[in-house]
Amino acid sequence: MSDNEYSGLSCPIPISEYPHVLLAHGGGGKLMHQLIEKIFTAAFANPMLETAHDGAVFKADSDRLAFTTDSYVVDPLFFPGGDIGKLAVDGTVNDLAMCGARPLYLSCGFIIEEGFSMDSLWKIALSMKQAADEAKVSIVTGDTKVVDKGRGHGLFINTAGIGSIGHDLTIAPSMVQPGDAVIVNGDIGRHGMAIMAHRESLSFETTIESDCAPLADTVMRLLDEDIEIHCLRDLTRGGLAASLVEIASVSGYRIAVEESKIPVVDQVRGACEILGFDPTYVANEGRMVIFVPKKEAEKALAVLRDQGLWPEAAIIGRVGDERTGIVTMKSLIGAERIVDMLSGEQLPRIC
Amino acid sequence: MSDNEYSGLSCPIPISEYPHVLLAHGGGGKLMHQLIEKIFTAAFANPMLETAHDGAVFKADSDRLAFTTDSYVVDPLFFPGGDIGKLAVDGTVNDLAMCGARPLYLSCGFIIEEGFSMDSLWKIALSMKQAADEAKVSIVTGDTKVVDKGRGHGLFINTAGIGSIGHDLTIAPSMVQPGDAVIVNGDIGRHGMAIMAHRESLSFETTIESDCAPLADTVMRLLDEDIEIHCLRDLTRGGLAASLVEIASVSGYRIAVEESKIPVVDQVRGACEILGFDPTYVANEGRMVIFVPKKEAEKALAVLRDQGLWPEAAIIGRVGDERTGIVTMKSLIGAERIVDMLSGEQLPRIC
Repeated sequence: MSDNEYSGLSCPIPISEYPHVLLAHGGGGKLMHQLIEKIFTAAFANPMLETAHDGAVFKADSDRLAFTTDSYVVDPLFFPGGDIGKLAVDGTVNDLAMCGARPLYLSCGFIIEEGFSMDSLWKIALSMKQAADEAKVSIVTGDTKVVDKGRGHGLFINTAGIGSIGHDLTIAPSMVQPGDAVIVNGDIGRHGMAIMAHRESLSFETTIESDCAPLADTVMRLLDEDIEIHCLRDLTRGGLAASLVEIASVSGYRIAVEESKIPVVDQVRGACEILGFDPTYVANEGRMVIFVPKKEAEKALAVLRDQGLWPEAAIIGRVGDERTGIVTMKSLIGAERIVDMLSGEQLPRIC
Repeated sequence: MSDNEYSGLSCPIPISEYPHVLLAHGGGGKLMHQLIEKIFTAAFANPMLETAHDGAVFKADSDRLAFTTDSYVVDPLFFPGGDIGKLAVDGTVNDLAMCGARPLYLSCGFIIEEGFSMDSLWKIALSMKQAADEAKVSIVTGDTKVVDKGRGHGLFINTAGIGSIGHDLTIAPSMVQPGDAVIVNGDIGRHGMAIMAHRESLSFETTIESDCAPLADTVMRLLDEDIEIHCLRDLTRGGLAASLVEIASVSGYRIAVEESKIPVVDQVRGACEILGFDPTYVANEGRMVIFVPKKEAEKALAVLRDQGLWPEAAIIGRVGDERTGIVTMKSLIGAERIVDMLSGEQLPRIC
């Protein structure tokens, strides 16, 4: 967590008394109640959490809702541009946004390894609160488990999210149509390379920062401007390539992209070259592809670039009418190749 | 998973090819898609999962909804009367039921340790499906992560759940009133002692089976009979004692229970005596306390016992009008003592 409005707050559980999380902090007794109250309820502060009930009860403002979940096992927990807490909020917020939903509520489940630093737990909770404020969601229900030392790895977080859908569009890979423009909201590959560089203690001239960011406001802006979005997908594990391959496969149409149009900053390109990675396969945490009808592409781009929101947003390709379900990429030298999904991941535990 | 309708199905990923889960199965590439499709989508089979989207979209049948989450880290993963999969479904279903909600949808997040048995993963997925069928919920969205060997422990599962609230009652600890009867739906302590006995390879004359069971149908029956439920709480970590202490503390009233009225089967009582446990602190996974006005207590008991559903259901105490917020227990010999919450848990990783 870097310089946010909460970063000055000190851990409410005295570090001198409990420097580390104990197995008993997950045992359902006094220590667990103290941990939940002093760390999580204090950090996330909202009326629903304070009812101390088994779940949160709310009134939905729409009868169409979206529901999603992700677990976060990123290693290291703190990295340039974010930490596991920010990631756990933004990642799930973004999955809701990809359904065209406005994120409302998050749940969070913590699996803590015995011996984990109490102060780090507090910093991560504050980072989640900061990210939740930014994404305009509340963390309303949660769970805490502690596993014995050596049977976890610091901290794993699961978040699930509920969002409301206030429009009549169906936004899904199956809605992709021939002629659709493929737009990306910014330069790709930064999250993966930030983690990689930090993990391997590689240093470049300037530090590569993760692109970790909430995307829901951007999606709401596009919808508010009545842009007929066909499909959205955030570019996490597997990167741009995996997302496009998956969408092409579900839609059944060919997706053709041009390498020269895909924004990659020099730092990331350089790091990828040195390490032998292809940026189109590298994970992102604040990037998405947007499929819109060709006639709406320029308008969508203008909304994305408005007020400097996503200055690097670009149209990177189009959907063809061939029913091949594949992705092709025109390289910098003009040759066309089929983009495939990797077997695994270039970088394990990236999110 | 013991003898259920799915137990004859063999693992769709050939064990000869992939006997164990690899790091690459969590990498966002082909292997991950294969794992999700062949194991999870196949086992949980429902139309929402098959859209291969970032989340599930649904129409709510009520504007009042409940939302809850729990992570499951039980050790061992398979135990008499259940497994982590059944627990992950029933536990979250029960948390929804404790809000008076009818469970609708579950999410699930898997954190798998590299090297985990593929066949066990399949068996656990089938067990989740069986439990979901029984509880009438659908698993509609999920996530899979794989962590390196030695940095997890077999399998951790998180589930989050959404339920609809079709009545106007507020069911919460703050609604408990003086004069309320305290009802428990069955004998206590079996889940904890089943895990303990299995973990420590203790054998008794007959195997103690976990009480792991879904409670939502029971709660719906009580509501259908217009019973004015004030509060519900399932007796998980910390057992009956921790639940009552928490409710007394939030409500502000004294809760008085009688030890002689708390059902405990002989096997569990015997095992507790040998091992030095107090059954009121032992975890359950299919037991709850129900707070209803005194005048409705007998009717509630009749509903619970109807058709042999919960033959052991019993009124174990009442809420006094003293504003002390404590729990007292009248022992078998007639002495009264204050029930406190333990500091930690007698048994770590019980759920």
